[in-house]
Amino acid sequence: MQILNGKEAAQAIKDSLKIKVAQLASQGKEVPHLAAILVGNNGASETYVAAKVKACEEVGFKSTLIRAEENITAQKLLETIRELNSDPDVDGILVQLPLPKHISEDEVINAIDPGKDVDGFHPSNVGRMVLGQSTFVPATPYGIMLLLEHYKVETKGKHAVVIGRSNIVGRPMSILLSGNSNPGNCTVTLCHSHTPNLKELCLEADIIVAALGRAEFVTAHMVKDGAVVIDVGITRVEDATKKSGFKLKGDVAYDEVAPKCSFITPVPGGVGPMTIAALMKNTFKSCAQKHYEEAEGE
Amino acid sequence: MQILNGKEAAQAIKDSLKIKVAQLASQGKEVPHLAAILVGNNGASETYVAAKVKACEEVGFKSTLIRAEENITAQKLLETIRELNSDPDVDGILVQLPLPKHISEDEVINAIDPGKDVDGFHPSNVGRMVLGQSTFVPATPYGIMLLLEHYKVETKGKHAVVIGRSNIVGRPMSILLSGNSNPGNCTVTLCHSHTPNLKELCLEADIIVAALGRAEFVTAHMVKDGAVVIDVGITRVEDATKKSGFKLKGDVAYDEVAPKCSFITPVPGGVGPMTIAALMKNTFKSCAQKHYEEAEGE
Repeated sequence: MQILNGKEAAQAIKDSLKIKVAQLASQGKEVPHLAAILVGNNGASETYVAAKVKACEEVGFKSTLIRAEENITAQKLLETIRELNSDPDVDGILVQLPLPKHISEDEVINAIDPGKDVDGFHPSNVGRMVLGQSTFVPATPYGIMLLLEHYKVETKGKHAVVIGRSNIVGRPMSILLSGNSNPGNCTVTLCHSHTPNLKELCLEADIIVAALGRAEFVTAHMVKDGAVVIDVGITRVEDATKKSGFKLKGDVAYDEVAPKCSFITPVPGGVGPMTIAALMKNTFKSCAQKHYEEAEGE
Repeated sequence: MQILNGKEAAQAIKDSLKIKVAQLASQGKEVPHLAAILVGNNGASETYVAAKVKACEEVGFKSTLIRAEENITAQKLLETIRELNSDPDVDGILVQLPLPKHISEDEVINAIDPGKDVDGFHPSNVGRMVLGQSTFVPATPYGIMLLLEHYKVETKGKHAVVIGRSNIVGRPMSILLSGNSNPGNCTVTLCHSHTPNLKELCLEADIIVAALGRAEFVTAHMVKDGAVVIDVGITRVEDATKKSGFKLKGDVAYDEVAPKCSFITPVPGGVGPMTIAALMKNTFKSCAQKHYEEAEGE
């Protein structure tokens, strides 16, 4: 059994970006600039955004954190996005989800300039991903693909079972793994809340991607020997022995599943750091594209 | 065994559209207008476009067929599309595929106004489909969903195996069947040329969608009793006894498979007519949307 160490793989990606950013700076060019919008005071969202801002610092990106009150109007939020869209200094825009219930997430995401949508949630970027065109792939699935690539996990011809059909993880993961690419070329079964025989399907899987958001849902009796297990879940479970009052649990019962696996991601330290590294890669890509277009226009 | 009669279901859709178009006309409103671009002289393309134009006549739409020589430049083709984009009288634009090799299909499709892309091939429409937002669903998968709906085929919780991952059929079909909708809510396995154990996977399927384009590929020993079989294939096979010199074969060996099925589509007369009915529905939707926006603007 080998651990797919997301911390290490993410560090390798960030180290490589850091060098490229330093090159840009030494050429007098603008470095990538990520603008993050955080609405309200959700604890998990605070943590995620802070980690993204910290990663920007690490690799040498500029970052701007825009905070809005929980009761901000949709109109005001859309205005902020339009300002960022038209700001030539901003390369990437992300709106930390979830948003308060009075605001339509679709409307907000659809307002982001697709060329700055480094989360890859805009319909035209999702469509480009499906069609295999150049795009920003959503950070979590992109991070998983980078992790598989980093550890040279063979995927071609394998049967992957993806549990969960969310727009930000399960669905794009099923699309990427079944694409004609490397990693990719898996036969993919996409499972969800209406799948009656999940255990049996998982037992057939060479690769399991657990992205349903239920702590320790995937147990040893659902996993065949030698499987690759990717754990996307991250649930806060109460734990009085911790200072924070909680501990983080994945969707996989790691202790009992890991011994059966050829490869497995830990939680934390697996998919999480890769998500942030993928976001950094997308932001760099947006900036590089801008410099390329500027050079073409000269 | 019940035949999923695409001719009948398509006729019901066209009859319903015909009434709605007559209502528009009686209110003095513009009726839907489909513009089709046909490049070169591919025999199958000629047939398909002719069938689409004929369907427009049947339901009372306006249609314009624009023919271009095989050697048209990409620039000239893009110009034609831009003219149609800005023509307020045109509700739907379709470019019959395949295009000659010197022209990028992606570039051409991406140039179509997404609001007139009634084939549903533009990235932003593909993305909206994935995200469950209002869109034009590609005609063939949309037609299949309408056929399942017409015959009230139960799909929720069923295991669907889709063979073929093309952008115009297999991929969108896998997305639609696994969506939280009705028809939908299937567990979906997407198979393709790198799937090693296709026979075994098909044998587990409650629903098989064959969209790989190989005549009579799906045989009786791949299908379990009671399965629903949707045959998207349409291959011209030489046949000296026919005046045309060929006959049409589906991807399913119909004669041996049909007796095992609960439902099956014939070829021809199954998915083909539904594709055209779905295109008509998309074109009507585009026109209705235009009238709605005009009324809102008054």
